[in-house]
Amino acid sequence: MGETRFDVLGVGNAVVDIIAETGDDFLESRGLAKGSMRLVGEDEATRLHGGMGPAIEVSGGSAANAVAGLAALGGRGCFVGKVRDDALGATFAHDIRAQGVTFATPPAASGPLTARSMVLVTPDAQRTMSTFLGAAAGLGVDDLDRAAVASSKVVYLEGYLWDAPEGPALFAAAAEAAAAAGREVAMTLSDPFCVDRHRADFLAFIRAHVDLVFANETEAMSLYETGDFAAAAGAMAEDVALAALTRGEKGSVIVSGGERRTVEAAAADVVDTTGAGDLYAAGFLHGYTQGAGLGRAARIGGLCAAEVIGHLGARPRADLRALVAKNLG
Amino acid sequence: MGETRFDVLGVGNAVVDIIAETGDDFLESRGLAKGSMRLVGEDEATRLHGGMGPAIEVSGGSAANAVAGLAALGGRGCFVGKVRDDALGATFAHDIRAQGVTFATPPAASGPLTARSMVLVTPDAQRTMSTFLGAAAGLGVDDLDRAAVASSKVVYLEGYLWDAPEGPALFAAAAEAAAAAGREVAMTLSDPFCVDRHRADFLAFIRAHVDLVFANETEAMSLYETGDFAAAAGAMAEDVALAALTRGEKGSVIVSGGERRTVEAAAADVVDTTGAGDLYAAGFLHGYTQGAGLGRAARIGGLCAAEVIGHLGARPRADLRALVAKNLG
Repeated sequence: MGETRFDVLGVGNAVVDIIAETGDDFLESRGLAKGSMRLVGEDEATRLHGGMGPAIEVSGGSAANAVAGLAALGGRGCFVGKVRDDALGATFAHDIRAQGVTFATPPAASGPLTARSMVLVTPDAQRTMSTFLGAAAGLGVDDLDRAAVASSKVVYLEGYLWDAPEGPALFAAAAEAAAAAGREVAMTLSDPFCVDRHRADFLAFIRAHVDLVFANETEAMSLYETGDFAAAAGAMAEDVALAALTRGEKGSVIVSGGERRTVEAAAADVVDTTGAGDLYAAGFLHGYTQGAGLGRAARIGGLCAAEVIGHLGARPRADLRALVAKNLG
Repeated sequence: MGETRFDVLGVGNAVVDIIAETGDDFLESRGLAKGSMRLVGEDEATRLHGGMGPAIEVSGGSAANAVAGLAALGGRGCFVGKVRDDALGATFAHDIRAQGVTFATPPAASGPLTARSMVLVTPDAQRTMSTFLGAAAGLGVDDLDRAAVASSKVVYLEGYLWDAPEGPALFAAAAEAAAAAGREVAMTLSDPFCVDRHRADFLAFIRAHVDLVFANETEAMSLYETGDFAAAAGAMAEDVALAALTRGEKGSVIVSGGERRTVEAAAADVVDTTGAGDLYAAGFLHGYTQGAGLGRAARIGGLCAAEVIGHLGARPRADLRALVAKNLG
């Protein structure tokens, strides 16, 4: 299989998060379902922003968060995603490169602005997101660097990307490039509503191309249209060689054929759950691509998730490498 | 004196902070003096940003932070400052208005971009700032709404503004409008280096026009070129009717003629000291304009400062009104 340039190449929406703390009443007044991510147009984004309280801006995007976390752990990360050549786009590019991630997708010189997600954090630390995809939805098959995919141990695809016009074609092209080079394909289901929008496509893609699925329990149950987690895990075992299913404070379950391994969650002081799944994937993928056992990979994932939910924003702030060394040796 | 529209009208630089946590070695490699604020040009700002780690963006600006804090406490705040009609300018305007502050200064349609301050936070929670003033330095005497000043209990001026070309004229115009309406003038010394740049002008302005000075101990000692805090406090008592001098974990000293009153600092878990002085001023001014005694005003100030140093960014996140009610009744 030869040398690799990257441990993980992530493909996803390049988004800047605009984060404000708010009360439940604001969600109700805007008819927002707590904990969900919905897509909005630019006008609705502007209206919502106008009604929001003072905010902070932090680079985000699901796969981007995961690759940034992997780099913070010392892994070699690459990200493919589309921004516009505007101020938010420059912020996104700066932040991911400053984390040590290779990010070479050229920004769009025209068309919609860089994607932003209005993230409303309620006192229970749940986040509710309204995302204007903007330039991110313009990511095309031509933006995929197949040589970089072929030189990455794992290509990591976010389900959200399926909402972009060329998303399905991009998934297929990435899976094909990975398979041709003998690399692995990982995918996150992203969000229960995203699973709902694309269930049949997700199932077909997973069965045909995916080696490793990341999902939280709600997403896994949504995929198989069941209210029973064990049933969802069982169905997942039939469809994919390896799945890491996260269950919040109940920890995560690693599904590998007939085996189920449950790993406890790390202790956390929860401020904002945004990015929990992304950072779990970051830690898991770092352990996995370094040849750690599945249990240790899951524990690294849990530790990274615990760090990111301890503050506003979905990118790590603490030195993750030191955190892992201190807690997991 | 008639009814007022505002408790406090702040005049200052309209800045967005770009905040990154960093090690001491980065400051050393860039020759930056820890704890200071220096002014930089756009090129140097871009170079510095390029070398910085991943960042978060939060609206800032000294007087703007103070007025935002006052509004968070339930006070009536107005802010005068200049942004450009760009993305950072829109962020600044949104955040201060979303906090309930009246902000009506028209943005510049041309010229330099909205001001940004690269804030480097070291593990000891000290902040080191490199500020590109950009559009903020274009604030002119014509931007001052004299009727609003006349209708504010206190006009609050930040020393940093003296670095802007029309800053001194703006200070004079604001003081004149306040005096004509029988209102009070407050001023913060901002930064020891700023005091150094403008010492003689600051002293002359304070003696002629200022009713209330805010300064930390370093700034106060710099103003009077003494290494002895008691000597600085004594000199201050000769020059101004009231001064609130902050001393970090040693609390604050209220200087009023021959009287000195020391108020203990509130307990704080220090993450980032950016905004400590601004939020102290917010709390003090809120108490002061509500007719509280000086001791209580200082305690509200200390409580607000403790809140803002507990997280990244110089704008309050907690519900300051509830915080004061809980701690000070």
